[in-house]
Amino acid sequence: MSGRLTITVNDILKAKNRIHSCVHTTPVFTSSTFDESYGRKFYFKAENLQKTGSFKARGALNAVTLLKEGESPPKGVVTHSSGNHGQALAWAARMRGLQCAVVAPNNSPNVKLDAIREYGADIVICDPTPTSRQETCDRIGRERGFHFVPPYDHPDVIAGQGTLGAEFLEQIPELDAILVPTSGGGMVSGIAIAAKALKPDLKVFIVEPNGKDVEKCLRAGERLWPNPPRFLETIADGIRLQQLGHVTWPIIRELVQKDVFSVTDDEIMKGMRFAFERMKLVVEAASGAGIAAAMSERLRQMDAGLRHVGVILCGGNTDIDRLPWYPTPAHS
Amino acid sequence: MSGRLTITVNDILKAKNRIHSCVHTTPVFTSSTFDESYGRKFYFKAENLQKTGSFKARGALNAVTLLKEGESPPKGVVTHSSGNHGQALAWAARMRGLQCAVVAPNNSPNVKLDAIREYGADIVICDPTPTSRQETCDRIGRERGFHFVPPYDHPDVIAGQGTLGAEFLEQIPELDAILVPTSGGGMVSGIAIAAKALKPDLKVFIVEPNGKDVEKCLRAGERLWPNPPRFLETIADGIRLQQLGHVTWPIIRELVQKDVFSVTDDEIMKGMRFAFERMKLVVEAASGAGIAAAMSERLRQMDAGLRHVGVILCGGNTDIDRLPWYPTPAHS
Repeated sequence: MSGRLTITVNDILKAKNRIHSCVHTTPVFTSSTFDESYGRKFYFKAENLQKTGSFKARGALNAVTLLKEGESPPKGVVTHSSGNHGQALAWAARMRGLQCAVVAPNNSPNVKLDAIREYGADIVICDPTPTSRQETCDRIGRERGFHFVPPYDHPDVIAGQGTLGAEFLEQIPELDAILVPTSGGGMVSGIAIAAKALKPDLKVFIVEPNGKDVEKCLRAGERLWPNPPRFLETIADGIRLQQLGHVTWPIIRELVQKDVFSVTDDEIMKGMRFAFERMKLVVEAASGAGIAAAMSERLRQMDAGLRHVGVILCGGNTDIDRLPWYPTPAHS
Repeated sequence: MSGRLTITVNDILKAKNRIHSCVHTTPVFTSSTFDESYGRKFYFKAENLQKTGSFKARGALNAVTLLKEGESPPKGVVTHSSGNHGQALAWAARMRGLQCAVVAPNNSPNVKLDAIREYGADIVICDPTPTSRQETCDRIGRERGFHFVPPYDHPDVIAGQGTLGAEFLEQIPELDAILVPTSGGGMVSGIAIAAKALKPDLKVFIVEPNGKDVEKCLRAGERLWPNPPRFLETIADGIRLQQLGHVTWPIIRELVQKDVFSVTDDEIMKGMRFAFERMKLVVEAASGAGIAAAMSERLRQMDAGLRHVGVILCGGNTDIDRLPWYPTPAHS
């Protein structure tokens, strides 16, 4: 299946109409101190203030709305995630009057499961293996008539995330580049489709935790990651997946810059602290990765023609009792 | 000196014109979860996102601008504060091209002094007594030709803070009440002057840390506080002053509700956590006090006619290495 051929900017603009009354047009923050320190104009897109605390609300709501309005709407939706996509799908299902089940491994933190439950979804616990979670999703699909909504590898999810790119360009038409913290690649491929159609010169960059090796794959034009897929060791738990998706990969290979910003945990934490201390925004570590890329020596040495740089603060769902700069949790 | 006779809503509207291009029109946040839990519609005015991280930027900039545009502008301005007013005055002075000195006690945390220095002000260390800090301010005034700008007890400062009330009512005309965390009373008196002139039925409430005893004073119509003025023991260091000011007191006595919301440290911390976890906003404990009042049993039992309730999130200057829900600081 080629993602590129099936998703266009029109799908994204239609998704925007479909979801805009239910999601926030998130504010864009600037900091003259930051600009002076790092030598360009930066624009921080605060998706941490989005419904459910992350951009995932966009893709989930687009997918759920299309299912609900389709010819044979399912009784409910199901996914596997103990994180932002789980919360987003639970919220989207409630918005559209569908049931929702979220499959989560038996080692998920309670604080995350509680957030999903608050949106009215049913939590189904599975073993912490990819096989168990997929089997559990399949079983729920069969038994309850629920439709599986994957976290990133689906055209309707990608089109929903793409609304973020279209919205950002409406707010800041002068953007020359956007830095996008990336896990499976749903957000960055959606943003790239929107941005390249609306402003072909705009450059979309991936920000990754060290070890994801996207640059190597992009330069080779091939998926070089070892299988089975693995998680990276990083404080940015929202972007710890090593591999890009199979729908997102061809889009990314075609539309996204081959220069990739790889950031360390220390850099991520420094970025996260900047958001807390100077912007007064609670962000999760994945957002800190975007800020870290903006602070990086690699960006400093890039083309000075990239004057207006957007940074996606992708989410704010962090456990405030376990902030990474404290040696021990608040409740230990 | 009667504050009431010297400050009117016209002063506030003029202050608004004077400062509006330099301060943010701060966003107002809502939370349907919060509204469902506490049974009214709440509107959170995010002055933590204001320039310098608190509402104090408004009053300081109004006062400094009037000095600068006056008949004999001083060379600079001086105040005593290691907190939000110090940062705000340093910023305002730089905006208007005046020098600034901030007198701070020798036990001030470095993190706060650094923030003041970053705005280009000169820090002058004094002994940690009211006498020493006033003498130091007076000396700097004489020696350098600097004008003293007090943190709250001045008509121009109060008029500046009042712009917050006028702006909030423009954004949310349906407000029936506003909850205002209060220390010396500059903000609450400014808001009350604006609100009572623009919407006479609107009720302005003080939120205080336990032990401030404003309700007792308001009901007696007298200043019952012991002298010399003292600080309360509270995590909300921005509002730890026990006494209201001498300019603010008569305004407050006339315009503010006699029912006062007294909150404990535990309640303040719960409010602060709500901002971090659900609103994704970094707020200081004084803002948490406002949220705590919104959550309080006392408000729950008040007139159901107060349907639309504003809450001032007055600032976001908290030390993220010493968040109150952690047993020990991050860097100990």
